[in-house]
Amino acid sequence: MRVSKRIAGLTGGGSDGWDILRKSRQMIADGVDVIELTVGEHDRRTEPEILDEMDRSAHAGHTGYPAVPGINALRDAIAARVTERTGVATTRENVVVTPGAQSALFAAHTAACDPGDTALFIDPYYTTYPGTIRGVGAIARAVSAHADAGFQPDAGDLAKAAPGARSLLINSPNNPTGVVYARKTMDGIAKVAKEHDLWIISDEVYDTQIWTGEHVSPRQLPGMAERCLVAGSLSKSHAMTGSRLGWLVGPAESMAHVENLSTHTTYGVPGFIQDAGLFALQQGHAFEDRISAPFRRRHAAALAYLTKRGVPVVPSMASMYLMVDVRKSGLSGEAFAERLLAEHHIAVMPGESFGQAAAGHLRVALTVEDSRLMDAIQTLANVIDRLSAEAA
Amino acid sequence: MRVSKRIAGLTGGGSDGWDILRKSRQMIADGVDVIELTVGEHDRRTEPEILDEMDRSAHAGHTGYPAVPGINALRDAIAARVTERTGVATTRENVVVTPGAQSALFAAHTAACDPGDTALFIDPYYTTYPGTIRGVGAIARAVSAHADAGFQPDAGDLAKAAPGARSLLINSPNNPTGVVYARKTMDGIAKVAKEHDLWIISDEVYDTQIWTGEHVSPRQLPGMAERCLVAGSLSKSHAMTGSRLGWLVGPAESMAHVENLSTHTTYGVPGFIQDAGLFALQQGHAFEDRISAPFRRRHAAALAYLTKRGVPVVPSMASMYLMVDVRKSGLSGEAFAERLLAEHHIAVMPGESFGQAAAGHLRVALTVEDSRLMDAIQTLANVIDRLSAEAA
Repeated sequence: MRVSKRIAGLTGGGSDGWDILRKSRQMIADGVDVIELTVGEHDRRTEPEILDEMDRSAHAGHTGYPAVPGINALRDAIAARVTERTGVATTRENVVVTPGAQSALFAAHTAACDPGDTALFIDPYYTTYPGTIRGVGAIARAVSAHADAGFQPDAGDLAKAAPGARSLLINSPNNPTGVVYARKTMDGIAKVAKEHDLWIISDEVYDTQIWTGEHVSPRQLPGMAERCLVAGSLSKSHAMTGSRLGWLVGPAESMAHVENLSTHTTYGVPGFIQDAGLFALQQGHAFEDRISAPFRRRHAAALAYLTKRGVPVVPSMASMYLMVDVRKSGLSGEAFAERLLAEHHIAVMPGESFGQAAAGHLRVALTVEDSRLMDAIQTLANVIDRLSAEAA
Repeated sequence: MRVSKRIAGLTGGGSDGWDILRKSRQMIADGVDVIELTVGEHDRRTEPEILDEMDRSAHAGHTGYPAVPGINALRDAIAARVTERTGVATTRENVVVTPGAQSALFAAHTAACDPGDTALFIDPYYTTYPGTIRGVGAIARAVSAHADAGFQPDAGDLAKAAPGARSLLINSPNNPTGVVYARKTMDGIAKVAKEHDLWIISDEVYDTQIWTGEHVSPRQLPGMAERCLVAGSLSKSHAMTGSRLGWLVGPAESMAHVENLSTHTTYGVPGFIQDAGLFALQQGHAFEDRISAPFRRRHAAALAYLTKRGVPVVPSMASMYLMVDVRKSGLSGEAFAERLLAEHHIAVMPGESFGQAAAGHLRVALTVEDSRLMDAIQTLANVIDRLSAEAA
């Protein structure tokens, strides 16, 4: 029986971009010692005290139907956090709790776009972005950011793509590049959004993993709060990837519709997970710094080493990834990643998994312990040297 | 800033049907002793041994990104359960785990319908049905089942509505009526589905709450497995409403697309909740009978009492609800429910919340302890008698 064109075409008919991950998992299952640097997952799991709070809440009976938009205490805590980080007055009416930021991005595009509307996104992009747009029945149109511009999107390129579009999805700090959008970039995005009456859907899940520079949320720019839908989550900041706890922040009248949508898509997030998330947020900055510290340390060490070796790295300022330019090897990112896995048992993501603008790059997740990571980085530099010499 | 027409029109622009619930909750917050018979939620919470297993799993480290379609052990357990209950050979490839049956119904309609397609549903209906269809950008068209036919949908009515439609959403055992569709009804549905090439989306979450008669899943009828998408959940069967754990079962090639959709909507269900759900399923029939026993007992007592008092009740065979016909009072279900709450502090759902076919009825949830329920039932019978006498 035929499924809908929409669901059949979700990933454009091709690969979902995770072939290398599947191969690497199969090799590990077969007993091969693969250094796994693909998925953005902390090597340390959710902290036990957060899980203890979840257990307490569950046994206390918070196991009934959840409040669909989130419990008030958690919505208040998220609102306070957003206010503190951006200076934009935010209350619980601006917040809907969702099962992860992915769910928030799906809701945001449903709120912004009717079927057949055009939704813009920036290439390179997190792998789910075009499928999220297609999933709500909208048309996904990529706007390339360029390697030679440090992957900062250009306002002129955006202005050319904007006519007729309803929304623009951005992500700073950026996965896969590790780039933080400059204030000038964000000002350009805001200008285009206002001139073309676009919703800005801003994925800010890496906002606690900034190593240099400063994160600017588009919502804090003049006149932008009314047209911004911001996705956040505790996955990266609190190592709670598997708890599926995120949120969408936006104008109160829009969020009332998003709450209504949640009634029809997920019926809310388990109450015991919400209580655990509230507890996590209450642990404050020191806790978040502890979670992000390994990535800060590894990022500095790997970047210093690769720079010393003369390996070109995207000017990364944030996130749990490093984006390495392997174009001088003469191989595509995909071909390079395949060889690295087959010959050296190191699994990294090809840039092409994140769009054509990232072709000829590799995304290296800094998600194994330091010495093992540095072994992999050293091998990677050696392979780049060797292949580049062969290609020259 | 303008939101999409789709999200703004999700509930048809009117009430979501839960006004009485909100009023009753406000009265309770104000200190009024309301007997709450609105929401289908067990008065006993999730069993502690299930929560212990969740805690064990979480502390064992099952807190990373979940397997998006569900962990294999849980998919296997769901497949085995479906095979046992229906006789249809079912494997993990037929199963995608979702955060609750609501999420499964949303996924099923996304799989069946493109934007602008027509999706049928039966009136009376669970409140989210039309919004779920509109949420995926499809057109929701109701087909009425009639009170004088015991709310069994008529094949002739379905055949009239079917031309041009892509799917038909059914729900047996039924919420709100408590009716179990007869084999003849299901045969009629199957015939229409095959003649008009419809997907059947079957919500079977009450399949452990059957007091008389037998549940037939449309998927077990000849030639129907290829066109059925069946939503199930542990909410009702295992008192796990707040864990948001459900599934969709269907043809393997369609479920691969549903898995892909899940990557873009929810990114799976927390691993520790899946482990808890697996443990729950492994407890077997005796456990499920223990969870459903209070509703079986209360259903029998309330039905016997109302019958003795001459109150017309829909010929209910299943579920945690009783549907009472109050038409001879001369009031709508809404007006009756408003008076019952205001004057007697008893909260029940008006039939109109579940569609026009249920107008002049009340849905009474059997979700408080027995003597308190019987007090409410007695008062309800008295009010019906009094208002009917006044109206006569």
